[in-house]
Amino acid sequence: MNNDLIHSLNSLRLLSIDMISYANSGHPGICLGAAPMLYSLYSNFLRIHPANPNWVNRDRFVLSAGHGSALLYATLFMAGYPISIDDLVNFRRIHSITPGHPEVGVTPGVDATTGALGQGFATAVGMAIAEKYLEALLEEQLPKQKIIHYNIYTLVGDGDLQEGVTLEAASIAGNLALDNLIVLYDSNTITLDGPLSNSSNEDIIKKFLSMNWEVDFVSEGNDTREIDKAIERAKVNKKPTLIEIKTVIGRGSVHEGTNVVHGKPLTKEDVANLRAKYKINTNTLEITEDAVNYFRKSIHTRMADEYEKWQTMYNDIRLTTQNEALIKILNFLDNQDVGLDFDCTKFKIQNDYFEELRESNSKILNIISDRTKFFLGGSADLSSTCHSSLYKELNFTNKYRLGRNLSFGVREHAMGAILNGISLSGIKTFGSTFLTFSDYLKPAIRFSALMNLPVTYIFTHDSVRIGQDGKTHQPIEQLVSLRATPNLTVFRPADINEVIGCWDYIAHHRNPVAVVLSKEEAHILAGTDSTATKYGGYIVKKEENRLDCVLVSTGIDFTTTYLIREELRNKGYDIRLVSMPSLDLFLEQPSSYQEQVIPSSSLVFTIEASSTMGWYQVASKNCAIGINRFGLSGLKEDVLKEVQFDYDSILKRIEEKLQQTKLNIIR
Amino acid sequence: MNNDLIHSLNSLRLLSIDMISYANSGHPGICLGAAPMLYSLYSNFLRIHPANPNWVNRDRFVLSAGHGSALLYATLFMAGYPISIDDLVNFRRIHSITPGHPEVGVTPGVDATTGALGQGFATAVGMAIAEKYLEALLEEQLPKQKIIHYNIYTLVGDGDLQEGVTLEAASIAGNLALDNLIVLYDSNTITLDGPLSNSSNEDIIKKFLSMNWEVDFVSEGNDTREIDKAIERAKVNKKPTLIEIKTVIGRGSVHEGTNVVHGKPLTKEDVANLRAKYKINTNTLEITEDAVNYFRKSIHTRMADEYEKWQTMYNDIRLTTQNEALIKILNFLDNQDVGLDFDCTKFKIQNDYFEELRESNSKILNIISDRTKFFLGGSADLSSTCHSSLYKELNFTNKYRLGRNLSFGVREHAMGAILNGISLSGIKTFGSTFLTFSDYLKPAIRFSALMNLPVTYIFTHDSVRIGQDGKTHQPIEQLVSLRATPNLTVFRPADINEVIGCWDYIAHHRNPVAVVLSKEEAHILAGTDSTATKYGGYIVKKEENRLDCVLVSTGIDFTTTYLIREELRNKGYDIRLVSMPSLDLFLEQPSSYQEQVIPSSSLVFTIEASSTMGWYQVASKNCAIGINRFGLSGLKEDVLKEVQFDYDSILKRIEEKLQQTKLNIIR
Repeated sequence: MNNDLIHSLNSLRLLSIDMISYANSGHPGICLGAAPMLYSLYSNFLRIHPANPNWVNRDRFVLSAGHGSALLYATLFMAGYPISIDDLVNFRRIHSITPGHPEVGVTPGVDATTGALGQGFATAVGMAIAEKYLEALLEEQLPKQKIIHYNIYTLVGDGDLQEGVTLEAASIAGNLALDNLIVLYDSNTITLDGPLSNSSNEDIIKKFLSMNWEVDFVSEGNDTREIDKAIERAKVNKKPTLIEIKTVIGRGSVHEGTNVVHGKPLTKEDVANLRAKYKINTNTLEITEDAVNYFRKSIHTRMADEYEKWQTMYNDIRLTTQNEALIKILNFLDNQDVGLDFDCTKFKIQNDYFEELRESNSKILNIISDRTKFFLGGSADLSSTCHSSLYKELNFTNKYRLGRNLSFGVREHAMGAILNGISLSGIKTFGSTFLTFSDYLKPAIRFSALMNLPVTYIFTHDSVRIGQDGKTHQPIEQLVSLRATPNLTVFRPADINEVIGCWDYIAHHRNPVAVVLSKEEAHILAGTDSTATKYGGYIVKKEENRLDCVLVSTGIDFTTTYLIREELRNKGYDIRLVSMPSLDLFLEQPSSYQEQVIPSSSLVFTIEASSTMGWYQVASKNCAIGINRFGLSGLKEDVLKEVQFDYDSILKRIEEKLQQTKLNIIR
Repeated sequence: MNNDLIHSLNSLRLLSIDMISYANSGHPGICLGAAPMLYSLYSNFLRIHPANPNWVNRDRFVLSAGHGSALLYATLFMAGYPISIDDLVNFRRIHSITPGHPEVGVTPGVDATTGALGQGFATAVGMAIAEKYLEALLEEQLPKQKIIHYNIYTLVGDGDLQEGVTLEAASIAGNLALDNLIVLYDSNTITLDGPLSNSSNEDIIKKFLSMNWEVDFVSEGNDTREIDKAIERAKVNKKPTLIEIKTVIGRGSVHEGTNVVHGKPLTKEDVANLRAKYKINTNTLEITEDAVNYFRKSIHTRMADEYEKWQTMYNDIRLTTQNEALIKILNFLDNQDVGLDFDCTKFKIQNDYFEELRESNSKILNIISDRTKFFLGGSADLSSTCHSSLYKELNFTNKYRLGRNLSFGVREHAMGAILNGISLSGIKTFGSTFLTFSDYLKPAIRFSALMNLPVTYIFTHDSVRIGQDGKTHQPIEQLVSLRATPNLTVFRPADINEVIGCWDYIAHHRNPVAVVLSKEEAHILAGTDSTATKYGGYIVKKEENRLDCVLVSTGIDFTTTYLIREELRNKGYDIRLVSMPSLDLFLEQPSSYQEQVIPSSSLVFTIEASSTMGWYQVASKNCAIGINRFGLSGLKEDVLKEVQFDYDSILKRIEEKLQQTKLNIIR
């Protein structure tokens, strides 16, 4: 390596170390060890245009080992992204563009939010799928020009490769032969708690070979030339590639090669020694122009022409094409416009409509799929029972890249993270499994919410009502967990009207959504309203004179509640019936609306076959009727009775309370 | 295979198929395909005594592919466990001992609850660790007798091997060289949605080799003799062994070899054809004595003597030994008595005690570890920052089986499931990670709760107060998710007194517990009480005359609340202060106690740096003060202010409400 390169590389190291020292928080070990990897990648490979960080045909980079954020930000600064030294000074300060772990949308050049290990790797797999799909879409229209043709690079550490979500996603990437995915493995054999050998003695190279990957090995991770060669080789592979690059954590620090240097700022002396060793005579958070220029020049030399050519080609096509299919794709590339025309008011459903809710959902899903190509998804091996296939579409495979059904296998967690990766391109995605198993992908759902991605989770088999499969398959606490997740909108529709209503919401919003469904049949119940679904809760039946109580319910339980209200009316009670497909949306409404639907002075029952936690934001004391225990295996009717959520038990509980209240009033 | 064996084996198949048909629910595919595997295992290998299903030195069997429950129950019946034909008739009926998926404690001979794929495999790894540990403990006292020396067998399907939790646990098993673990892989290349190749093209054999397993292959899974030979070989391996056994799903059915036969009862004709093919002339749910006797005899011949000898040896030792260390172990083996003497009243903490909560927890953890050997655990690579090491103990490794610290690596999910496996032996276990990452192991936590196992989860870094690491590391919804899980007791102690209180609870209960901790320092706050912790909530400071409001808080936030109360008192308000280390335990108290602590007529504020969902069971309307958005990266003080959970914001919110209430009263 020449002296200019060495100076530039060590300047990058120092800059990131200074950021950590100044913030008094961060992870120096990876910065010193992995700097050559990022240096090589950005200076010699990544097809980027730092002045246009969101260039649609750029190569993507995901720092799966998100704790290396300082190194990434310093690299992006040096590469010329709109990031200033002041931004680096504010590393880990509030409202800075340099937060503790990388956040997409916050820092120019950051392509995915990472930090919880494994998420980045799996998200990168999703990004690679999106690239293949978009590339194939364009190839149909323009077989020669490569408007979309980019690679996804990700940097992972030993910890990333221990996570189950990584291993699930790696299997999928191998099966799909995603040759646009290149993984740089920062192999330093140290984890936070100590030597990797405490917890692993596996052969990562053989492991990835077994999953149909190409693998490569760099024995000296401090030599950018070796890394360059390996990436060069990886680019022509016909499979995804993992490059194991041997590094020394905290290289150059007094604690190099140990876990001590992983997560604590270096001492002042340690930093001073590094400066001396590098012969770089700068102040803290200072960098020489030479160092920056050398780095920027390599990117500029490589990319300036290519970027201009691409822009010219793109603009030419943009201005001249009359091809409507192509225009739709270009609209999508320009502003992530999926061109989805969906208006719930245009659906007319017959009054005697009667269907399994999962099947109603399937119909709408397929209607949406007909209307936009920027909609794809799949299932963690439950598409046939969640009814979540796109029936007119084929599978996305290693040969057919226009497929829009993804077979994730029984890999719920990777499914979630991969959907996130696909959605980062702007494509709307969906994934399905049983509601109980939403636990398996919760960390990925959290990342959908953190990144505000248009992912729809379809969770069927949504209560103990599934009966015979028993408690392992009967969700209790899952709805609560989803509802408590910020930025995730949870729907549990009562019938096809509300299913349409929630897809209307999905069509017009970009945040993640969970659609929670029963597999049971639901009638259209007079009064449900697709247009009101977006308010979260609304009145289906008003009381006639005095308001004895309000019954609030969701999903398939709304049918039971509807019938209970009828019976109570026959007994002389005057009752309001509220459907609440989305508790979170209801609580976001102005208090005047909430008051209008559920007067705060009224006696309010909520009825849902789920943990009652959360419902006391709406229900009166002791009036949230639900299930706060595990279920059991048996016929549906027997199970409901046992957990006191059958028709009779619910009716009795409401009636007793009503009588008690009446007595109180009379007294 | 001789005719008697074939008759017996096919009778087993028919019995399980009949069960499914009669229940009109279940999974015939695995029953027909994998019957020879269970047949071979039970008749020729498992060291069991069906009349004593809980024999402490029995071999364990875990049906990780839990949907094969009918096959398992039919096998257990044939083996002579206390299960009747009537029990099989009641398959998947309520309160039967034959539920939809296997449940430990419900069916004699079922060693673990399974059904959510992957859990069983990982749990089996934990069981293998427990065996090694107990064996080593006994070897110290009795170097020659093998009082504890058993194998763990598990049956997995293609789906199991796709799950991340399996892959994480497999790495750990390889690293620990658990040669007492033998995995039978029912390799039928079909999953619920179709051919395995849709989602996998990996080489499982190579994959397990890369993880330091032994592997074996049986090309004809219908031939019990081939399976016998492979298990015979596996028993002498020095590593865990995976035997890939090629089977045909639904073998013999018209839909054999396809996913159609996976999860739907066979048609009547299909069953009739099977009967004809097998030349077995029984009625539905009938079995010939010959078939049963042939099977039972093979177990009896193999095991009767061995079991008697073991009992004699054990009883001799039991009656004669004076060795106290040994007696403690035998007490444990007899009734899972961990011999832990722990009484929170015996701890005297100075009034000026001041310490990080994670460190207080570490001290108690280590005290408990000193007092019982039946206590072990570890961390998903965060022991150094969760402070969860047992400092006097060594690591459990492939060489040292008396180690009591487990290095799980960054494998949270496997950690949870492995803890479950260890706990199934009666050993108390613990595992640690950050609270945010509790999401990663939620499915395993659910299984701790489903099986009611003595697992303690230590979750530190419990709120946005961690500051700079940012939103990916800041929990919001996790406490809610844990609290909503039935059977799991969640503590968030305010200081060392309550930490002691919650470990007192753990010492005297067998259900799973989550201890949620800040890494911040907490003072002893006058009035906190280790003995009251078990009530979930209790009064720390009473009002003096009139009760203006009740402030309820948990964990480190209690300190803030304490100070806010002081300030409000100075302003003339008369306030009660309640500490609520466990909302779930509080809600389990008699309503009279709840009323005594929090009068229902009072104005109640709850203060916790977490989603407020759940707190409205206690708080007055709009008075649950918490954080219902994602956090952000910054200094703690800045972050708290931004999310309006700093001292001033909380004070202001309470004061405004108090003033408003006062005005309302005056009006």
